[in-house]
Formats: sequence, structure tokens, C-alpha cells
Amino acid sequence: MNHFSYYNPTRYVFGHGEYQNVGKLLHGRTKKLLLHYGGGSIKRSGLYNAVVNALNDAGIAFIELGGVKPNPCLETVRTGIALCREEQADCILAVGGGSVIDSAKAIAMGCAHQGDVWKLFTGEEQLSAPPLPVATILTLPAAGSENSPNTVISNPATNRKLGYGHELLRPMLSIVCPELFLTLPQEQMAYGACDMLCHIFERYFTNTPGTELTDALCEATMRTIMQQASILRQEPGNEAAWAQLALSGTIAHNNILGLGREQSWTCHALEHELSAVYDVPHGAGLAVIVPAYFDAVWRANPGIFAQWAVNVMGVSASRDTERVVQEGIRRLRAWYRELGLPQTLQELGIPAEADVAAMAAGACSVRAGGILPGVKALNQAEAQAVFEACR
Amino acid sequence: MNHFSYYNPTRYVFGHGEYQNVGKLLHGRTKKLLLHYGGGSIKRSGLYNAVVNALNDAGIAFIELGGVKPNPCLETVRTGIALCREEQADCILAVGGGSVIDSAKAIAMGCAHQGDVWKLFTGEEQLSAPPLPVATILTLPAAGSENSPNTVISNPATNRKLGYGHELLRPMLSIVCPELFLTLPQEQMAYGACDMLCHIFERYFTNTPGTELTDALCEATMRTIMQQASILRQEPGNEAAWAQLALSGTIAHNNILGLGREQSWTCHALEHELSAVYDVPHGAGLAVIVPAYFDAVWRANPGIFAQWAVNVMGVSASRDTERVVQEGIRRLRAWYRELGLPQTLQELGIPAEADVAAMAAGACSVRAGGILPGVKALNQAEAQAVFEACR
Repeated sequence: MNHFSYYNPTRYVFGHGEYQNVGKLLHGRTKKLLLHYGGGSIKRSGLYNAVVNALNDAGIAFIELGGVKPNPCLETVRTGIALCREEQADCILAVGGGSVIDSAKAIAMGCAHQGDVWKLFTGEEQLSAPPLPVATILTLPAAGSENSPNTVISNPATNRKLGYGHELLRPMLSIVCPELFLTLPQEQMAYGACDMLCHIFERYFTNTPGTELTDALCEATMRTIMQQASILRQEPGNEAAWAQLALSGTIAHNNILGLGREQSWTCHALEHELSAVYDVPHGAGLAVIVPAYFDAVWRANPGIFAQWAVNVMGVSASRDTERVVQEGIRRLRAWYRELGLPQTLQELGIPAEADVAAMAAGACSVRAGGILPGVKALNQAEAQAVFEACR
Repeated sequence: MNHFSYYNPTRYVFGHGEYQNVGKLLHGRTKKLLLHYGGGSIKRSGLYNAVVNALNDAGIAFIELGGVKPNPCLETVRTGIALCREEQADCILAVGGGSVIDSAKAIAMGCAHQGDVWKLFTGEEQLSAPPLPVATILTLPAAGSENSPNTVISNPATNRKLGYGHELLRPMLSIVCPELFLTLPQEQMAYGACDMLCHIFERYFTNTPGTELTDALCEATMRTIMQQASILRQEPGNEAAWAQLALSGTIAHNNILGLGREQSWTCHALEHELSAVYDVPHGAGLAVIVPAYFDAVWRANPGIFAQWAVNVMGVSASRDTERVVQEGIRRLRAWYRELGLPQTLQELGIPAEADVAAMAAGACSVRAGGILPGVKALNQAEAQAVFEACR
């Protein structure tokens, strides 16, 4: 196990109806906040009115910015920064899924930063001051942004989708209410579960030795995500299953499962190229990328892949490691199929003439030395081969 | 799963030699601190000198109070409070195991509290101001106090050992270095592993429905504790195993594993009576209490005990639940024996004439309605029967 320093000061409040306490929970923490959200769903569901009432009851002033789209855009972030500066907002309340929360985090750091917020994502600048505090009410469990120190933003002008991480980006407060997920479309549940699972894959498949505890915690969470998503595929209105899936999504990405492990994030880097250019749902893109990536790298560390196949995918242990690993990957593909997820670039709606060489170059460009890390490091040609295998 | 609010702002730093960074990590966080420790072991090992040097290098002024004993005493706490007030210390640095850290937490809250610190433990008073920040360098993984919001203090004048919990008692900083544990006596390792395991038992054995994720996380951590302690029984100098055991001890008690679960803490309440009257090691007392307690309560929820027997103790699943549970408990007793832990009050050195009725009354007296909660609530007579079964 490697050295690590872990710091996670988010107050995490979980339970049916807890969003009604948002005013009390934020009381004394803000003079004026930016209420940030996506499309019309929170207005249709009544959540918007409930949140507005809770803020009013607590005497918390607020301004609003809606309209955040999946794969949240730099343009909205810039609008939010200008608005917060003009109105002297001192806190962002994100009501939404990972896209809204990531947008809120980018606004929060852009408000504090002296320079250009996008240059934080490209690595050209370093954050010059602590970001504004962010609070969240989660409406879609998937990205784990409600408790992670990360944000991912797309810049359509340059076809780039880039992440930024800073421990001060963990939300001050996150409220998770399982009943808010009951009306989500099936494909959103599937994308979310796929994203959660991949957050663990990026941590679990490592060459770091001496990781028994986090191995076992990762395996426990992976099994739970798969079980609960399969239940929700049959019973979308099962609130107890949503509670388990949502909490799993938080644990999957708050880095408890990654403590002291060298991490990869190569599947995310590859998928971000698909989303940036073709605006596909992140979870759908991951379902296509992950099995092809596993096929490409497992031979570099058959032990960890066989352990996963046995402990997570239920494959019988055997000395025939290749058979065990292949069966594990086959079962993962079958589970993706069970959830209705795409299997190929074509099924994702990406045209045959897609420039996979350019996407491989893009993915490699944001990593040190142009190499994508993991149990087997990938150069640009190898990254391109993974994209090719997804056709 | 029940509603919950989780807040854990401890900065947790893990790795060989990280204690040397204590000065840098505390820089700017304190003007003068109380360096709090136990016996002479940290002076013999050189840790004391290293910490003093690190503080001096960072320009951090400090005063000292050593001499904390296992089952830390109210008297030392009162001395520490007086010393901190006199010297205007604004932070406590505990270098030690759970006893030293618990003593530091009690001093930290006693310094801030307007009334009598012991009345916080008896429930007669409520904390009137936020405690001073506590930092820790862990020398004995067991109690989990390095990341918990709890402290347990003994008052020999009244033969009471009582706990107090407050979310502001989580340390500001905890540093865990596995190499510091290499020279611990075997029995300390065994007591520690037994305590960690029981911290999970108190959370895991519950009647709360819908807890699949934390069930699986509890099981993963219990298996890891048992595996790593068994390794350390054979190889006390295995630093990698100490790293896993120490991190498991933190996870076992920082309440990630208890999220949304009704918890018991009845084994701890029963054991505290043994420690308070006979000053036995807490982990040794638990090894005697736990199996007798399981025998007394499992029939109230055979499902969770059978799940534990299968998923943690490796018993083959079967429809004969009684056989499965009994075999699980038998294996737990065997594991305690493997670790050299006592099995009876007699082996603990508690005389046959011990007043178990008074101990049962003491344990019940600190719980609402005089009832010890759990999968089966115990009244005073039933608590006494558990003590009797330990003879």
C-alpha cells in the first residue's frame, strides 16, 4: 500500500425527504447563494418548489442559474462565474446530477480564481484561492460528484472534456434522498451504475501490492452495485434498492476505496474523448470502452483480474487463469447487455469514419509523457487499438 | 436503511515515517500544544525525540503531559485540563494508542466546557463549547479513536468507565505509520484485533432492513482483520500486514460501516464493567463477552448471524440455520484462542466471587430505560446471565 493523505469534510445527509432540511442545514453558512440546476425535471417533480420554500423559510437569499446540460459546458460555467461575482453570491447550491454538481464546482473555483477557469482544467494555471463552498441535492446517482473532489467540464469550442481535482472541491454539504430517483428513466439508472462501477475499476485494477482491505471493500461495493442495478432493472420503483445504489455511488468515488492504491483513470480518459466529440452519455461510453480495455491489459496482471472474476463476477476459482479472466469479462459484457447498455461505437451512434487516431492522441495528451497509466500503460498506438476494438 | 448524517473532517495521513511530518502538518494550526502520551515506550523507541524535533523544526511551542495508563483515568484528564488552561494551550497532540487519544479528547472538551468534564460522561451536562482540536500519532491500532468521534474514560473513584460521543471530537489530524507497530507485544496485537472486530459486530448485528452495502463492507473488513491478525500472530514483524490491520481498525470505527444502521454497543457496555472494576484489557474482556453474548441473542435474528457465519467465518451455507450459526460462533471462539485471548472470566483473572449482578446493573444503568439494545434487547437479568455464561 502506498502513502496517502485523506481529507473529506463533506457533511453527507441521507434519507427520504431530507432535501426539505436544506435551509436549516445551510443556515448561517451563506448570505446569498446561487441555486444551480439543469433542465425542467426538478420543476416538474416539485423539487424546485420545495427547495425554494426551504431556502425562503430559512431566510437564505439566492439567485438562480438553470439549464446545465449533460457533459456540462464551459459556457454555462462562465455565465455562472459572472453572475456570482455580480451578485456577490458566496455559495453554490447544485440541485441535480453529476453534471450540475460539476458545473457548480467549476463556478465555485472560477469565482475564487484570479485567472481563467479553463486554464485550471488544461493545467496551465493553478487555483489561486479556495473555491466557494458547494452544497448539493442529488437527483441522479452516478458520477459521485456529491462527495468527490473532482469536476469534469466540456469545452465544445476545442472538443475537449477535461477533469480537475482539488481537495477543497469536496462539497460542504450533500443531501441524498432515494425517493428522488424513483422516476429516473431506466437508461439513466444503467448509465449511472456503469459509471459507479468504472470508478471502482479505475482504483481496483492496480499493480500496487499489499492492498487487501481496499481490495475487499472494492469487491463488496462492486457486487452491491451490480446486484442493486439488476434489481432496479426489474423494479424501477424499488426505493430501498435506490438507497443502496446511491450510497454505493458515493462510496465508489469518495476515494475510501482508492486509499494507498496507484490508480488508472484510463477508461475515463478514453471515454471523455467519445463524450467530448460525440456528446454520448458518459456511462454508455464506458460500457463500450471498459471490456475492450480489459481485453487489452489483463495479461499485464492476471492475478488481480482473476481475483475480480472470482470475487465479483462469481466465476469459479481455477488454475486456468486465462479462462477465469475471460469468463469474468464475458459476464461483465452480459451484465451491461442486461442493463441495455451499448456494446460498440456503432451502437453508441458514433459513425464508422470516426477519427479514432485523433481521439487516442487527445486522451494521451493530458497524461504525463503521453502515456495512459494502469496495470499496463498504454501509448497512443495502444490507446487507438482499444478504440478500434470497440467498433 | 435509516436516515443518517455523516461528518468526518479528520485529515488522515498514512505511511511509513509520516510522523516526521507532524510539524509541517500542524504548522499554522496551533500556537502552543499539549504533547500527551503514555508510558516510556515512545521515549525508548525514539518516537518521542522525533516528534519533539519535528515540532521544534516547525517552530511549534508545546508543553507535556505523559503517564496516561490503559483504561485512561479521569484524574489525568483533570490534570491535563488544568495544565492547558494555565499554559493557554490551543491543541492537544496525542502520541499513543486509544487510551492516550481518548484522554486527549477528554482534555480537549474539558478545556472548552464550562462545567465539570465528568458530568459530560454521566450525561448530567451537555458540551457548552467546541473542544480544542486534537491531533494524533497512533502507536497501537485498536480503539479506532484516531478517526472516531468518541472517548471512553474511567473514574476509579466510582468504578465507572463511560463513553462520550460528539462529532467535533473527531481528530483534526491523525498520522498512522505501520512501522511503529512492529515492536508491539503479541497480546496487544490480539487485543487490538479483537476490539476492531467488535466495533464492527456492534454495527453489523442489527435488525435494520435494507443494509446490503454496509453489510458487505462490514464483512470485507471483518475478514481482513481476521486474516491480517492471523498473519501477524505468525509474523509479528510483517509491516504490510500491520498496514492492513491498522487501516482496518480505523475503518472499523469511523462509522462508514455503520451508516444508516441501528447499532448495539451492548458488548462494549458489558465489557466496560469488567474493565472498570478489574482493570482488564478491553480487548481481552471483549473476547470473553462476545461469544457468550452471541449465544444469548442470535435466535432473535438468525438471518444476520447465518449471513455472518457464511460470509465472514467461511461456514458452508445450509438451510440448517442453527448449525450454521453455531459453527460460526465456534469458529470465532477458535480464532480468539488462536490469538491467545482468554475465554472465561477466570482466564481474565476475575475472581469467582465477582459481583456480576452489580456489573449487570451498572451496564444497564447507562442505557435508556435500563435496557441494552441489539438484535435482542437485554434487561438486567439477561445481562447478568451473559456474565454468568462467561464464568
